[in-house]
Amino acid sequence: MSAIPVPVWSIDPRTGERREQAAEEATEAAVDAAVRAARTALGPLADRAVRSAFLRTAAGLLDEARPELVALADSETALGTTRLGGELTRTCYQLRQFADAVDAGSFLDVIISHPDSSATPPVPDLRRYKVPLGVVAVYAASNFPFAFSVAGGDTASALAAGCPVVVKAHPDHPATSEATVAVLRRAAARHGLPAGVAGLVHGFDAGVTLVAHPLVAAASFTGSVRGGRALFDAAAARPRPIPFHGELGSLNPVVVTGPAATERAEDIGTGLAASMTMGVGQFCVKPGLVLVPADAAGDRLVKALGQSLVDVAPGVMLDHRMRDAFVSGVGERSRLPSVETPVAPAPGDAHTVAAALLTVPADRLAAEDGPHDLLLEECFGPVTVVVRYEDQAQADAVLGRLPGNLTATLHVSAQEASSGSAADLLARLAPLAGRVLVNSWPTGVAVAPAQHHGGPYPATTSTSTSVGLTATERWLRPVAYQNTPEALLPPELREGNPLGLPRTVDGRREG
Amino acid sequence: MSAIPVPVWSIDPRTGERREQAAEEATEAAVDAAVRAARTALGPLADRAVRSAFLRTAAGLLDEARPELVALADSETALGTTRLGGELTRTCYQLRQFADAVDAGSFLDVIISHPDSSATPPVPDLRRYKVPLGVVAVYAASNFPFAFSVAGGDTASALAAGCPVVVKAHPDHPATSEATVAVLRRAAARHGLPAGVAGLVHGFDAGVTLVAHPLVAAASFTGSVRGGRALFDAAAARPRPIPFHGELGSLNPVVVTGPAATERAEDIGTGLAASMTMGVGQFCVKPGLVLVPADAAGDRLVKALGQSLVDVAPGVMLDHRMRDAFVSGVGERSRLPSVETPVAPAPGDAHTVAAALLTVPADRLAAEDGPHDLLLEECFGPVTVVVRYEDQAQADAVLGRLPGNLTATLHVSAQEASSGSAADLLARLAPLAGRVLVNSWPTGVAVAPAQHHGGPYPATTSTSTSVGLTATERWLRPVAYQNTPEALLPPELREGNPLGLPRTVDGRREG
Repeated sequence: MSAIPVPVWSIDPRTGERREQAAEEATEAAVDAAVRAARTALGPLADRAVRSAFLRTAAGLLDEARPELVALADSETALGTTRLGGELTRTCYQLRQFADAVDAGSFLDVIISHPDSSATPPVPDLRRYKVPLGVVAVYAASNFPFAFSVAGGDTASALAAGCPVVVKAHPDHPATSEATVAVLRRAAARHGLPAGVAGLVHGFDAGVTLVAHPLVAAASFTGSVRGGRALFDAAAARPRPIPFHGELGSLNPVVVTGPAATERAEDIGTGLAASMTMGVGQFCVKPGLVLVPADAAGDRLVKALGQSLVDVAPGVMLDHRMRDAFVSGVGERSRLPSVETPVAPAPGDAHTVAAALLTVPADRLAAEDGPHDLLLEECFGPVTVVVRYEDQAQADAVLGRLPGNLTATLHVSAQEASSGSAADLLARLAPLAGRVLVNSWPTGVAVAPAQHHGGPYPATTSTSTSVGLTATERWLRPVAYQNTPEALLPPELREGNPLGLPRTVDGRREG
Repeated sequence: MSAIPVPVWSIDPRTGERREQAAEEATEAAVDAAVRAARTALGPLADRAVRSAFLRTAAGLLDEARPELVALADSETALGTTRLGGELTRTCYQLRQFADAVDAGSFLDVIISHPDSSATPPVPDLRRYKVPLGVVAVYAASNFPFAFSVAGGDTASALAAGCPVVVKAHPDHPATSEATVAVLRRAAARHGLPAGVAGLVHGFDAGVTLVAHPLVAAASFTGSVRGGRALFDAAAARPRPIPFHGELGSLNPVVVTGPAATERAEDIGTGLAASMTMGVGQFCVKPGLVLVPADAAGDRLVKALGQSLVDVAPGVMLDHRMRDAFVSGVGERSRLPSVETPVAPAPGDAHTVAAALLTVPADRLAAEDGPHDLLLEECFGPVTVVVRYEDQAQADAVLGRLPGNLTATLHVSAQEASSGSAADLLARLAPLAGRVLVNSWPTGVAVAPAQHHGGPYPATTSTSTSVGLTATERWLRPVAYQNTPEALLPPELREGNPLGLPRTVDGRREG
């Protein structure tokens, strides 16, 4: 442990230059202090009325700080003020949605079983609800400085569940992270909550220390397969393992049927171009592998896609390391046998990248352990791989080789949609992903009760979601009270339901 | 991989002698065949009507085979025909409860969000429900040859969720396991399900192979910390990690307050004796550490406990290895400084064990990493450790040192219960366990919707339960359908709710 503070710099990705020193890397002692401070907030957070008020105040103060926050985030990420403004709106909306959920209390999942001596074994009085796990470690994402960062969905859902957080800031936006946590702490202070309710640490080593801290009870992560898997492994290897909800990587396959291509090749091509280049291709749900028929209609689709991509202005990626990885990743893929590059993997200037398009015949992806397996790995940035298939068997063979995904998309013709003839094909896509879409694009993850943002490994390391109200489930565990006198029961479980919670009593839903 | 089959013997624990060859250890090829056979049952199991009918038929056929099954299990476990008859009844009840749950469909957790263009980002049509994960590996317990074994809660909940199972038989009851799986397969055949829907493998190596099999999607385990942790680690280390729901070990602490001891020392002492010796102390919820005041009332409690224990007839443990571990475990604990043995750790005859009682002053457990830490580890069998505490600070110090538990029990006086003055103490117990009890005993785990059988590590390796209807949650993952035309939607998610499922639509519960 060094005695000399290691500075954390805020970098402008448009120039690669240092903007300012945003913070210092957290030492082991600093991580320990942050976790212990968070732990002291567990008690005060137990009051649901305080919790929801805190979340609403946080949303209000983030809204008030909008001009500074958006400008700061843009200077660190180059994502643009329009996109970042929308992202901040989403973040505030999310905080308010979780505040409403805290008030409603459904997530407490109260279940009451009255005694039943006729059962084998007899059923005593049992009352079960969910309680917070404890301090949650949140590993912020690079590509959403607001919505999947300090005050993003992981933090909002953890706080809603009653869990204080310690956020590991992403190095791509340390100043934005500091500014955001300051807002959260101002909101906390207004409701008498300790500042430690939202901790923030910087630095790679701090992240490793954090996941191993004995008082950390669960963790969430949004990022790369390599980083996420290392933290997942560390969480599992602890003397006392903890739940680790990581979102690691996703190809987000798209299948275009023959009739769909025949019907609207150009629409699909231009729609795909917009989706895959949105945010300079830096979305976890970017469509990264697209199965297109190897026929004339498919040719039209690829042509329209390529033409649209050429018109997309080069963009600045989140940092120069990512830019280099994108350029070399596209280059390496383009040099594989039979891979063509209708839109060449040309970089932009020294700080930007241009979109790229690769195509490959489906039979190249059928064999395992070949060099083309590289095409089954996510390449972060504005590139997609179009796989041309001759027949359904070839398409199925490629689908059978895919790792788990956040999304899988099917484009069908109007007739296939209305007749249901594409149902079998859709049923083959569902096992590959946590969200399946028809005739639309996966970018844009709505915050809604029915949302599921997760999927088979490596999309996520657990079966839970990081977006939508069920995201709170990750931070709770059930506790059952048996034969407990009314005066000793938590109010949530008392017979008369003094808090007016929705609950299930002897199999019947109430409220 | 040996070409010579390795026999699996059925052993009579009352004599230690071989009864018969029950099976052979599964080779790697046999494990692979079992998993692949299970995989083929995933499609047929998708029909919920078939699933519930199968579970009910299985319950009926197990009931019909009762005389043979109970006699066989008794010959392999020495648990007695009364207890085993009750356990089989429980097992059948559990299968029927899950059948009802399959018909009701609540566990599908259908949530529908209709489009909302006013949200940021806009909400498309989203419909989410839960789908089965795939083949589940079930590691059977030693101490419940029916209820936590081949047709037990893990299997029943997995099948209810739509997941075929491959059970790793416990070596203490291979013949019972074979007889039970034969019944399950007869039930499967009646409903046109392939026999592979319930696979069975024997042997330590087979268990290791099973958890690593690429087509195994999740696992459950009930057993020791050492075995469970090794399998947990293997599940986490897979190229594609899988959920591992292990129940590993639990001390099940009990706290007796001063007023409770004063009020009913003898009742508590005799009740504890009955609970800790039930089933020869071979319950995962056996009260293994009891905090008793170091005063005259506490002395009365310990005396009553000791007298009751002396009257308990020696019992046969599940196998001789466990018997040896119990005898040496009690011996080792009894030789620790300041540990007294009011009921000496005397074994019974060569095949039985007698109950034992150890006491220790609370201050001996306050220091970390001392030799007395051994008392904080579960000792399987009829023994409990009574910790005598001088004041609440001492009791709290011991509670602060406990690992996670399945249960925590509080004994209070009538006045403490009715006034609520013990609420703070109960609130300190709740973080330690998944089920808290007041003025009762943890043995006897009811099968009820509000049950929670799980707890902080090492009680369980996840936040889920292995008993009660929510046990199905372990084997499911959500999938959301976005903008999917009605004709392509699974019937569970169609607008008109053709299956009549309970669901939440735009935040409102239906059904």
